[in-house]
Amino acid sequence: MVRGTIGRCRWAIAEGHLPEALSPSSARLESGETACLLNAGEVDAHVAITVYFANREPVGPYRVTVGARRTLHVRFDELIRPQPLPRAIDYATVIESDVPIVVQHTRLETEGAQSALMTTMAYAE
Amino acid sequence: MVRGTIGRCRWAIAEGHLPEALSPSSARLESGETACLLNAGEVDAHVAITVYFANREPVGPYRVTVGARRTLHVRFDELIRPQPLPRAIDYATVIESDVPIVVQHTRLETEGAQSALMTTMAYAE
Amino acid sequence: MVRGTIGRCRWAIAEGHLPEALSPSSARLESGETACLLNAGEVDAHVAITVYFANREPVGPYRVTVGARRTLHVRFDELIRPQPLPRAIDYATVIESDVPIVVQHTRLETEGAQSALMTTMAYAE
Amino acid sequence: MVRGTIGRCRWAIAEGHLPEALSPSSARLESGETACLLNAGEVDAHVAITVYFANREPVGPYRVTVGARRTLHVRFDELIRPQPLPRAIDYATVIESDVPIVVQHTRLETEGAQSALMTTMAYAE
Repeated sequence: MVRGTIGRCRWAIAEGHLPEALSPSSARLESGETACLLNAGEVDAHVAITVYFANREPVGPYRVTVGARRTLHVRFDELIRPQPLPRAIDYATVIESDVPIVVQHTRLETEGAQSALMTTMAYAE
Repeated sequence: MVRGTIGRCRWAIAEGHLPEALSPSSARLESGETACLLNAGEVDAHVAITVYFANREPVGPYRVTVGARRTLHVRFDELIRPQPLPRAIDYATVIESDVPIVVQHTRLETEGAQSALMTTMAYAE
Repeated sequence: MVRGTIGRCRWAIAEGHLPEALSPSSARLESGETACLLNAGEVDAHVAITVYFANREPVGPYRVTVGARRTLHVRFDELIRPQPLPRAIDYATVIESDVPIVVQHTRLETEGAQSALMTTMAYAE
Repeated sequence: MVRGTIGRCRWAIAEGHLPEALSPSSARLESGETACLLNAGEVDAHVAITVYFANREPVGPYRVTVGARRTLHVRFDELIRPQPLPRAIDYATVIESDVPIVVQHTRLETEGAQSALMTTMAYAE
């Protein structure tokens, strides 16, 4: 058994929805959509995220680096440059890396004591 | 890293359930099953959705177009032509496109302050 | 675009849990684990389900038929022959078909007004 | 139809989160993240789990054995040797086996009468 690189360089997530901007609260801290990235390899992964919409041109790439042997959980509402994502609309994402990574999509909704969860491995190519 | 086409041309979702038709309400607006389609390529995707049932012949194709570089979130309860989907029964879907797309299946159930979520990438071939 | 067969002949679901047997109630009717099977092809699918446990030999096969161009949602708590599944234990399943099908695993938990959902495409080979 | 081996030898789960350690309670018994492993083959599977973090070196391997024709549901909060997993941080996992297995990732959150569920097949290579 070998510890090391696993994954692919191009991934897609077809579901995405950012709610209206919320006032600061613990719920806001907990809720949201996340792309969980795993780079199990020995070199840093330079990742470009492009975001697609229903009625406008895509934006991006948003750039993040996942260090060698590290995981990074990217919250979509924290993608700020080149521009903050618009709110209250559907979106989808393509995630491209210069080395193999693994991508999983998770949404957590929390309201008071309630919570709802969903997750799926992204589509890899 | 190249921005462009990703995905496959044939997808399937084996789970599906449309509840009884609901009276108009905010819950109705929020709840439902969705096929999220991403067309990251440079030409429009012409998509045909065929719906299968337990005890009757399949219906369709329902036709939708996903523009180049666009995402489309298709609600199954809004598929009207050639016929509205029957209610309160299980179904499954095959989604075929003339160019590669990515398909993700999501169900949201909302009742009052409660919500439940599930999602999965569809099966691609 | 061709309507017809999609899928694989061997699938696996690694997660499974049957709760203690419940008294008859609407909750019971709603809750449960399901394997959703889609046979989009033109001949019937003869399906064999084998169930694996943590501490005992596997049981099965449980046999179901999914008609041509039909979907079947199999509830695990309704698998009776060759023997009812034991309760309150973890299990996993291998689902084999003589023609290609698509398999999706879904769990619904309902208690009063609460519900929780999860789903994933099964592993295909 | 042949009963026997199904799966792959290398799997990854990119999402993971262990909450703060909880006081003993029924909620604690129910909640948690699980890797469900299925070994449908005829020889035992020797499995090594490596856990990756955002800001520190990976730990492991944690070693478990899944008997021939058995399933094992591994709770991440029960991985103790070589060291207990740190709490309240994000993680990801690579799961390697000397024979093919199937891996599914599930998280259950329970608080009082509320529950939230999510699941996905892991990424296989």
